[in-house]
Amino acid sequence: MADPRFFTVAGPFSLRDLAGMAGADMADPADGDRLFHDVAALDAATPEQISFLDNRKYISAFQASRAGAAIIHPDLADRAPAGMALLLSKDPYRAYAKVAQAFYPVAAPVPGIAGSAIVDSSAILGDGCRVEHGAVIGARVELGARCRIGPNVVIGDGVVMGEDCIVGANATVQFARIGSRVTVYPGARIGQDGFGFAMGAQGHLKVPQLGRVIIGNDVEVGANSTIDRGAGPDTVIGDGCMIDNLVQIGHNVQLGRCCVIVAQVGISGSTQFGDFVAAGGQAGFAGHLKVGPGARITAQAGVTRDIGAGETVGGTPAVPRIEWLRQSAMLSKMVRNKG
Amino acid sequence: MADPRFFTVAGPFSLRDLAGMAGADMADPADGDRLFHDVAALDAATPEQISFLDNRKYISAFQASRAGAAIIHPDLADRAPAGMALLLSKDPYRAYAKVAQAFYPVAAPVPGIAGSAIVDSSAILGDGCRVEHGAVIGARVELGARCRIGPNVVIGDGVVMGEDCIVGANATVQFARIGSRVTVYPGARIGQDGFGFAMGAQGHLKVPQLGRVIIGNDVEVGANSTIDRGAGPDTVIGDGCMIDNLVQIGHNVQLGRCCVIVAQVGISGSTQFGDFVAAGGQAGFAGHLKVGPGARITAQAGVTRDIGAGETVGGTPAVPRIEWLRQSAMLSKMVRNKG
Amino acid sequence: MADPRFFTVAGPFSLRDLAGMAGADMADPADGDRLFHDVAALDAATPEQISFLDNRKYISAFQASRAGAAIIHPDLADRAPAGMALLLSKDPYRAYAKVAQAFYPVAAPVPGIAGSAIVDSSAILGDGCRVEHGAVIGARVELGARCRIGPNVVIGDGVVMGEDCIVGANATVQFARIGSRVTVYPGARIGQDGFGFAMGAQGHLKVPQLGRVIIGNDVEVGANSTIDRGAGPDTVIGDGCMIDNLVQIGHNVQLGRCCVIVAQVGISGSTQFGDFVAAGGQAGFAGHLKVGPGARITAQAGVTRDIGAGETVGGTPAVPRIEWLRQSAMLSKMVRNKG
Repeated sequence: MADPRFFTVAGPFSLRDLAGMAGADMADPADGDRLFHDVAALDAATPEQISFLDNRKYISAFQASRAGAAIIHPDLADRAPAGMALLLSKDPYRAYAKVAQAFYPVAAPVPGIAGSAIVDSSAILGDGCRVEHGAVIGARVELGARCRIGPNVVIGDGVVMGEDCIVGANATVQFARIGSRVTVYPGARIGQDGFGFAMGAQGHLKVPQLGRVIIGNDVEVGANSTIDRGAGPDTVIGDGCMIDNLVQIGHNVQLGRCCVIVAQVGISGSTQFGDFVAAGGQAGFAGHLKVGPGARITAQAGVTRDIGAGETVGGTPAVPRIEWLRQSAMLSKMVRNKG
Repeated sequence: MADPRFFTVAGPFSLRDLAGMAGADMADPADGDRLFHDVAALDAATPEQISFLDNRKYISAFQASRAGAAIIHPDLADRAPAGMALLLSKDPYRAYAKVAQAFYPVAAPVPGIAGSAIVDSSAILGDGCRVEHGAVIGARVELGARCRIGPNVVIGDGVVMGEDCIVGANATVQFARIGSRVTVYPGARIGQDGFGFAMGAQGHLKVPQLGRVIIGNDVEVGANSTIDRGAGPDTVIGDGCMIDNLVQIGHNVQLGRCCVIVAQVGISGSTQFGDFVAAGGQAGFAGHLKVGPGARITAQAGVTRDIGAGETVGGTPAVPRIEWLRQSAMLSKMVRNKG
Repeated sequence: MADPRFFTVAGPFSLRDLAGMAGADMADPADGDRLFHDVAALDAATPEQISFLDNRKYISAFQASRAGAAIIHPDLADRAPAGMALLLSKDPYRAYAKVAQAFYPVAAPVPGIAGSAIVDSSAILGDGCRVEHGAVIGARVELGARCRIGPNVVIGDGVVMGEDCIVGANATVQFARIGSRVTVYPGARIGQDGFGFAMGAQGHLKVPQLGRVIIGNDVEVGANSTIDRGAGPDTVIGDGCMIDNLVQIGHNVQLGRCCVIVAQVGISGSTQFGDFVAAGGQAGFAGHLKVGPGARITAQAGVTRDIGAGETVGGTPAVPRIEWLRQSAMLSKMVRNKG
């Protein structure tokens, strides 16, 4: 179970209730009244806990598990150990997410402004907002209901956020309009000047950065990630994007909906992503590119040209992934033949 | 126009005045009294606004633009749409930077120390400095005139800065001597210990880091970038260097004047750059190297040897860029021939 | 000598005392009473200072040095200039580390809680702790003796630390149990949610992250590095690990003892390192891998498979380093032959 020093578990819940929350079916409705007290991994779960199997790699752990119940794909129901109650779902990981959210709900913020926080008198905070110690909220800021502003956060003048946003400790948000249910992780930097200057032999000359950062709903921005504001146009992050830690997003970049950007990716200025693009860790993108919807970019790839919808690419400069793998295999073979 | 929630536009200015600020020539002096109210991109500009054309890729946008005026290279003057006033410059982007700075000047700081800031009694602040809420300024710090220290910034004991420096929110500066007109972006970390220790089978042993960070004039250090102080010698950043976000600069590194270091570059300890070196995003440099003046390093390159003045390199390990491109092309061709 | 603005030198010490501290032997015991006032690099040292030679590349600097004493390997004793006192050690850099620590000891913290710090009434601070201005320490936090919590640091509810820990300015620590003598550099983020969600065409669904970050003794976590807490299992950093700046460590990662992780490395979720693994700068690791003890990963390598104990790998996807170097050499040759 989760360390009670840090987590408080809700429940217990009946399997019937869990099935309802998860959008899953009970394999045997007779199990509906059984009570479960927590979630746990297959190898750690007890008979009072519910687990899940999502990756067939772990099927032997599933078969050896003492979990009282598990969420699994219907195709695997007949592999379950005797006595284990089953919730059947075609997307067991998503169903598990819902069950885990039930056991570990995010508590509503305790409304109020901590004593050492500084909130400008012109700022407007919605009902139920919480501002922690040391946070500094600038002039004309507008926060929707139930936002949580962490300790030592800085929100610059004029920033607008929707409802239920969370800004983690020591983060900075400036020149931004942000939707609802957005989570900004600790140390993220949103809205500073883009890297724009006119180069010259007598020194480089700063170009004023006159755009904003526009973030949709249901977005996460990871710890210590940086999103520069636009140079004139805006930098735009679409609804549902998940951005991991230490990601760099340059000025004027536009991400479509539900993009997944893994840690340490860098996206240069003015590049545009369609919806549901997935970029692996440490991948890099040159500026002024278009990456089509559903494209997948392998970790560490270096993208220097437009990528079509649904394409999967790898390598530097990035080529179709299958080609990149063949290049690697060919190189290995050639070297070994000579060795 | 820029969102008035975040930006305040100055002006209007006559074309004559703008020409003077930009160091550009009016194509037709009869336009000198026309007034302009803002800058804007070619596709968004109105007849009361001034735009610019720097990249020939956008020449059709230029020809279709409703902008009242534009800054362009003299060679392109005859491509302008009828009625558009022209400012002629051999460096239109630089001229635009000056015009944009006129419309969006950086306001002088409002002098004073915010109520929750902590300034050690032995610190010396020049005239017109501004220290925001939650900032902590240590003993014997010396700031020149008109410095702005952002909210929740930490300036360690003994740090010295020149005039007109800006330190963004939540940044940290320690063990550093910094010139004038330096901008440190939010969350940058300057002056912590370098990564120095004696490795050993019984554990690694920390080596005291006894140098400083010395930063020249007119430098920018990007958001969440890290510059370690020297181990004994200093870490040195030359005048006019532009350092983007999430860049790592190790102990004892020396950068010459006006280097451009794009996001997520990493420079290992004791490596030295000449003047005007440009390093593309995510490039990495081994330690103890010399990179000659004017060298250009392609994004994601991995530099493992000294690079001569003016050389352009790419790939890992980095080779002359033309060779790297040929390697990539050859690999692609070989794989396709076999495919 | 180190800038007295930032550093205070201890001493002087006799060569005999320095030999004792360093675990080194005097080449000539008659030098035992000679006093030394500071450490310095070979090219800067004066007759009152002690230096060291670790890298044979610098042997001519050694021979030209005016240093009054030097720490060297016994094999090189006969190369010393006349009059230089010698301390002989088979590990001169480690011996130098000890001598430098004697001249520049880390001062004990001045106990107390600065006026603008916020310490929850339920937190327990050991004897001699120092909490700087603007730090925020949550409920039920427990700190061992002599911890230093820097300015504007945030320590979340329930965090536990051992003795003599240092948390640098503006860092954040949550959901963590940390050993003794751990140094967290400025801006590091420890314990935020891992990057865990169920992807879906209707949007991604957050999976509660129910684990912790467990850090052993004698660990360093570099500036602006990020260590996510576990999803259910914990994220674990073993004793003696040295983690440089801007490193990303995903949820459930486990590092063995004394690993060395250079700047900008990224380690994806659930990957496990044995003891004494060394990862070069900007290297990346896919998730769910096992990297054996003593493995060495070249800078910028992309590791996509398990790595055996003691293996050295490079390239993306990573292969044995010798193979990677041969691939590079072969490619260069092929291109030149065609050129």
